[in-house]
Amino acid sequence: MQQVLMTGAAGGIGTLLRPILPKLGVKMRLSDMADPDGGPAPDEDWAMADLTDAADVARVVEGCDAILHFGGISTENRADLIHEVNVKGTYTLYEAARKAGVRRILFASTNHVIGFHRRETLLDADSEVRPDSIYGVSKAYGEALATYYWHKFEIESLILRIGSCFPEPKDRRMMATWMSREDMLRLIETMLFAPRLGCPVVYGVSDNPECWWDNSKTAYLGWRPRDSSAQFAAKFADFEPEDPNDPAVVYQGGGFAKAGHYED
Amino acid sequence: MQQVLMTGAAGGIGTLLRPILPKLGVKMRLSDMADPDGGPAPDEDWAMADLTDAADVARVVEGCDAILHFGGISTENRADLIHEVNVKGTYTLYEAARKAGVRRILFASTNHVIGFHRRETLLDADSEVRPDSIYGVSKAYGEALATYYWHKFEIESLILRIGSCFPEPKDRRMMATWMSREDMLRLIETMLFAPRLGCPVVYGVSDNPECWWDNSKTAYLGWRPRDSSAQFAAKFADFEPEDPNDPAVVYQGGGFAKAGHYED
Amino acid sequence: MQQVLMTGAAGGIGTLLRPILPKLGVKMRLSDMADPDGGPAPDEDWAMADLTDAADVARVVEGCDAILHFGGISTENRADLIHEVNVKGTYTLYEAARKAGVRRILFASTNHVIGFHRRETLLDADSEVRPDSIYGVSKAYGEALATYYWHKFEIESLILRIGSCFPEPKDRRMMATWMSREDMLRLIETMLFAPRLGCPVVYGVSDNPECWWDNSKTAYLGWRPRDSSAQFAAKFADFEPEDPNDPAVVYQGGGFAKAGHYED
Amino acid sequence: MQQVLMTGAAGGIGTLLRPILPKLGVKMRLSDMADPDGGPAPDEDWAMADLTDAADVARVVEGCDAILHFGGISTENRADLIHEVNVKGTYTLYEAARKAGVRRILFASTNHVIGFHRRETLLDADSEVRPDSIYGVSKAYGEALATYYWHKFEIESLILRIGSCFPEPKDRRMMATWMSREDMLRLIETMLFAPRLGCPVVYGVSDNPECWWDNSKTAYLGWRPRDSSAQFAAKFADFEPEDPNDPAVVYQGGGFAKAGHYED
Amino acid sequence: MQQVLMTGAAGGIGTLLRPILPKLGVKMRLSDMADPDGGPAPDEDWAMADLTDAADVARVVEGCDAILHFGGISTENRADLIHEVNVKGTYTLYEAARKAGVRRILFASTNHVIGFHRRETLLDADSEVRPDSIYGVSKAYGEALATYYWHKFEIESLILRIGSCFPEPKDRRMMATWMSREDMLRLIETMLFAPRLGCPVVYGVSDNPECWWDNSKTAYLGWRPRDSSAQFAAKFADFEPEDPNDPAVVYQGGGFAKAGHYED
Amino acid sequence: MQQVLMTGAAGGIGTLLRPILPKLGVKMRLSDMADPDGGPAPDEDWAMADLTDAADVARVVEGCDAILHFGGISTENRADLIHEVNVKGTYTLYEAARKAGVRRILFASTNHVIGFHRRETLLDADSEVRPDSIYGVSKAYGEALATYYWHKFEIESLILRIGSCFPEPKDRRMMATWMSREDMLRLIETMLFAPRLGCPVVYGVSDNPECWWDNSKTAYLGWRPRDSSAQFAAKFADFEPEDPNDPAVVYQGGGFAKAGHYED
Repeated sequence: MQQVLMTGAAGGIGTLLRPILPKLGVKMRLSDMADPDGGPAPDEDWAMADLTDAADVARVVEGCDAILHFGGISTENRADLIHEVNVKGTYTLYEAARKAGVRRILFASTNHVIGFHRRETLLDADSEVRPDSIYGVSKAYGEALATYYWHKFEIESLILRIGSCFPEPKDRRMMATWMSREDMLRLIETMLFAPRLGCPVVYGVSDNPECWWDNSKTAYLGWRPRDSSAQFAAKFADFEPEDPNDPAVVYQGGGFAKAGHYED
Repeated sequence: MQQVLMTGAAGGIGTLLRPILPKLGVKMRLSDMADPDGGPAPDEDWAMADLTDAADVARVVEGCDAILHFGGISTENRADLIHEVNVKGTYTLYEAARKAGVRRILFASTNHVIGFHRRETLLDADSEVRPDSIYGVSKAYGEALATYYWHKFEIESLILRIGSCFPEPKDRRMMATWMSREDMLRLIETMLFAPRLGCPVVYGVSDNPECWWDNSKTAYLGWRPRDSSAQFAAKFADFEPEDPNDPAVVYQGGGFAKAGHYED
Repeated sequence: MQQVLMTGAAGGIGTLLRPILPKLGVKMRLSDMADPDGGPAPDEDWAMADLTDAADVARVVEGCDAILHFGGISTENRADLIHEVNVKGTYTLYEAARKAGVRRILFASTNHVIGFHRRETLLDADSEVRPDSIYGVSKAYGEALATYYWHKFEIESLILRIGSCFPEPKDRRMMATWMSREDMLRLIETMLFAPRLGCPVVYGVSDNPECWWDNSKTAYLGWRPRDSSAQFAAKFADFEPEDPNDPAVVYQGGGFAKAGHYED
Repeated sequence: MQQVLMTGAAGGIGTLLRPILPKLGVKMRLSDMADPDGGPAPDEDWAMADLTDAADVARVVEGCDAILHFGGISTENRADLIHEVNVKGTYTLYEAARKAGVRRILFASTNHVIGFHRRETLLDADSEVRPDSIYGVSKAYGEALATYYWHKFEIESLILRIGSCFPEPKDRRMMATWMSREDMLRLIETMLFAPRLGCPVVYGVSDNPECWWDNSKTAYLGWRPRDSSAQFAAKFADFEPEDPNDPAVVYQGGGFAKAGHYED
Repeated sequence: MQQVLMTGAAGGIGTLLRPILPKLGVKMRLSDMADPDGGPAPDEDWAMADLTDAADVARVVEGCDAILHFGGISTENRADLIHEVNVKGTYTLYEAARKAGVRRILFASTNHVIGFHRRETLLDADSEVRPDSIYGVSKAYGEALATYYWHKFEIESLILRIGSCFPEPKDRRMMATWMSREDMLRLIETMLFAPRLGCPVVYGVSDNPECWWDNSKTAYLGWRPRDSSAQFAAKFADFEPEDPNDPAVVYQGGGFAKAGHYED
Repeated sequence: MQQVLMTGAAGGIGTLLRPILPKLGVKMRLSDMADPDGGPAPDEDWAMADLTDAADVARVVEGCDAILHFGGISTENRADLIHEVNVKGTYTLYEAARKAGVRRILFASTNHVIGFHRRETLLDADSEVRPDSIYGVSKAYGEALATYYWHKFEIESLILRIGSCFPEPKDRRMMATWMSREDMLRLIETMLFAPRLGCPVVYGVSDNPECWWDNSKTAYLGWRPRDSSAQFAAKFADFEPEDPNDPAVVYQGGGFAKAGHYED
């Protein structure tokens, strides 16, 4: 693994990760539709690309050994936009990877692919897909696409169902779903250097006290989160008790599960 | 159930079913992008619609209690066409249904959603999605979409993973995957009139001797196939033995699993 | 098996079964709290007993090889009565059986032990108990009691979760839950004469088209229902469509699941 | 959670917990049939109540947000007493809770509900009930009752199958089943303040080296035991080897599984 | 499949099958250590071979497309003999097959590989091996060997756990374990001509009323037994009731499970 | 446990363990076919024995309470040798143990019993046997034999599927399969002194970052590995990336799975 591409590098997770990416010890190409806030850092290799433009994508994928595909729309939005970017764009990325001989991809999926499971159900890699949003449905498309490229072309993907990757939990629910950027970085490192990756589904979450997701089936990878939301417990100590029957509390998808259909 | 819409009515399955649809005893509206071969029958209610055109779809859905959604591309094809029709088109159909208050939909999915499972693996409603084609990936999108509309809006869908619905098996593999049109019709009747449908995954296959798919988890519906491919056994009695390690034999998707990426 | 006791012989199922019990070819003692409607038949051996009276029960159990325990309250009722008859009474019966050396008991349990499962969930012998009524809770007590006597004293019990044992289905739901008296009789015969009974949970239901319950784990017994509610389909052909989201339709327990707490 | 009731406060576990209950930071009402040994502490709010007396129970439940129901008979005893207290009494408590609008209950169940499983079988929340005593059967009644109130009335219960909650293990078996009072207190805190409790089955046991019970399905609660019986290993270092085929060693229920029927 | 070898052709099952083997429509070579009782039939192709003699085995395997390996010791015996014939002999057969390019083997295993499961446990292809005899252990060796040749060399084997293949059931237990020779022949036909065999475990049993073994995981083969022991029910109608706690009744292996270690 | 026999004491694991065996606090008899390299230590009790010689084995087993059976061939070899030592020899050992009244045996099995499972499949005690070598097949025989002696004669065995027990990992694969000798010793101690052992399958592996095997089903034993291969990570930091599709990487058996049939 010499050259690695990160898409969506100007997005939320990209922005969190960029300062610590050098720890990976690989050449990193960063890509997004626009420059990052504040502009690229001096030592960063930026390459603009629109995921829905096959030529753009082919250009940035060229010469890469692996891709961290964080690009795309990452919350509920208009269905036409989601189809354009998360369906067509993800397909464009995988096709470019296939043609360029890329062997490994991290596909940034989301917990909203399984957001309509109840909080009291422990999920694992084989749990039924139950998207809570059109956004979640589009990521289910991406997950299925990743398995297609694996079974047909032996392109390995880590399907990463990310919980909440922020500097710290922003609400009570994130005490269960939070993932630290350091745990994310270690997972990326694992995914890049594992002798065999295959096409596993991994839940992207730190070792928080409240646990909804069981990653034991992918223990062969050797990734174990080291951080925990427990350090932020005080922040929510005096929170107003939630209604246990509020759909945003009942379902793992939280507010996404509760919301009606997106209207612009 | 007074008024039922069938999309894709000029397609393969639509053409097979049209002569026997009157047995359902409901008012049937038939829709496709073009007139059926030979033109509509005198008593048929045809309504032209392009699935990717929201206005068209809204018009034909209007006033329907249920939809048999057989429309869309039903084999491997160019990805852009598949995205347009099977992704965008399926979304358009479900949104129209939601707005029009339709309560039940049969979503015609395919065995190519699980085509990369080995033949010796018995699948059921909870088996992992393993599409063997971009076509299969697009149907995985549709299945996920159906569950979204069920969990969020209580629109019931029968997710039907159709084997091979033809007058008779066309090759050795279809001895396992064949579904008679009469079994299909009985399943449609079941789906229309069951007290509660929910959002089950059902494999569309007759009671053939070779069985890859187990529908027992959806036995609550009360559908039991009555036909069998056994009646066609003589047709394949002198077939050339197949190579058990040919990908088209190893995988349930047959030729779809064996084929390379679609190139136009 | 020479001498068999049936409790609750004047109740609904007892009354249905009495005319065909002679087919079993055993000496049958019939017991209830009161004489049956119309009085005993000339060749019947009746013995009055109150299940909550240990002396009564000891008397009728005396000399029996097996017991068909259909006695008790068989629908929702005041909790104090249910506790008296179905909890204390069932205990009294099992203790009397233990002391008298009875080796086999049919414990008439009910589908209301699992009535809060959804209709679209296929249950089997290991499914979680989810009673829909205090009546159902009392039968969960009886089921647990039967396993206690099995594990500690090797008294074998057939735990029979009866669906709806009537001459014919009385409502739409019973198309799924109906059990013919002939299927019941064959099950009793099986239970009396099996080389080994153990302590299985069996769902008491005929081979109806709609199937919620899977008895395959107890296939070692050799009981296969031969009747089907299909013969009564015409009776419900013109039924008013049910609301699939009505709790009485959603849950297997039907009206029991929908009802509030019993108030006298 | 402002006001919490503890029943059985003068019993074994109540006595262990009372000194540390103030850490919960809630107003605690303590109840039992009689004064605690040594009398109430100055700051304790005691309320006498007989669980089988509905008026008593209604009085102490009044105004409570949650109940820790440790009351009842906690070992094998005469069946009539167990039925009176653990069956009728538990029902009385739940009915009082329903009428008073209590939303959460900890139901103190026992490992003797599953005592006839072998030691080498790892159990979890879905394991089959196999009571080893009439006491265990009565707790199976209580567990079923708790699920009834959850499914019908949305009263949340933590069904706690307690191992051995003592200051320290009293015999070799308790090295596996021991639960520290601090772990118990943390579980109570978790149960009171979780955003959503549902109706989970949790095994009440510390993080002991020998582990028979797997709580991972209820990891969503966020409770993780911190204590371990390992600290008491020296106490049993020179124990006489046990016979691995002694029923008290074979079965998880230990001496309860080995004992004959209770005779007074 | 032109040329098929049957080993053990002079044994019990071989003798039963020989008259009907011509229905298979293949050239059959029959082999055993000695001539069959009464000598070969005029049209039979007999080839003497000792399974423990590599040269013998190579000679009879030569030119075969498939092997029906019924040879070996088929009941409990001295361990040294069993090791010689069933361990060393089976290895010799598989090695000869590998070197001769044979692609398919029926390995005649036995229910005594799983004979220490209780009668009330429904087994399937994935059930734990629990041999009830050294004979059963030697067949577990053979089953493991078959999977080795499958995974390493793609030699397909049907691992057939035969119940009781006799003209008719000889005792009460065989009402559950009986397999007709016609069902056996149909299974052989299926195994020879299936497009893909793989390396499945199949229980060799007819469609008897009492069923201990579930073949649904291998339904892809298309074999469904058509006979049933029900036709012999009268034979056992007046049997002396068996003791349900007799090890020969408790365990599926019957008398094999009950017997002590073989002593010569 | 006073007197314990270790077979194979001059082999690889025996040599590693011998210096630390005194920590067990039992009288240890060491046995092998020849003297250990460098000769016995002064305080060691050595007894020569050939596992295939019943008289030899009877002599060394005499008077032992337990056996640590590490003897036998521990890598792929000529089939006739493997059958002689690992099949006949293991049988000889168990028979001697039965006759001498030995109650507990550690049977040193190997991960090569399951070597044809893919690396990305998490295995546990119930996973299907898939040997990757004749050596692995012979250990499958030994495992089946151990269960026979357990079910028929109540001789308890720990079936230990050893990963790689060396001073440190010797290649990249051993980062996942490594077991420290201290973890091995603690497991032996656990096995000798557990109140009840039964006949569990345990994977012999330290708490390494990469985990292929899940021992949670045998958590009742109380063994938890304390070492980890993580301490050796630097050793493989600059390893040449492996081909994820190399059979030696795909399969858990590593090079054993990749190798062709053993040719001498």
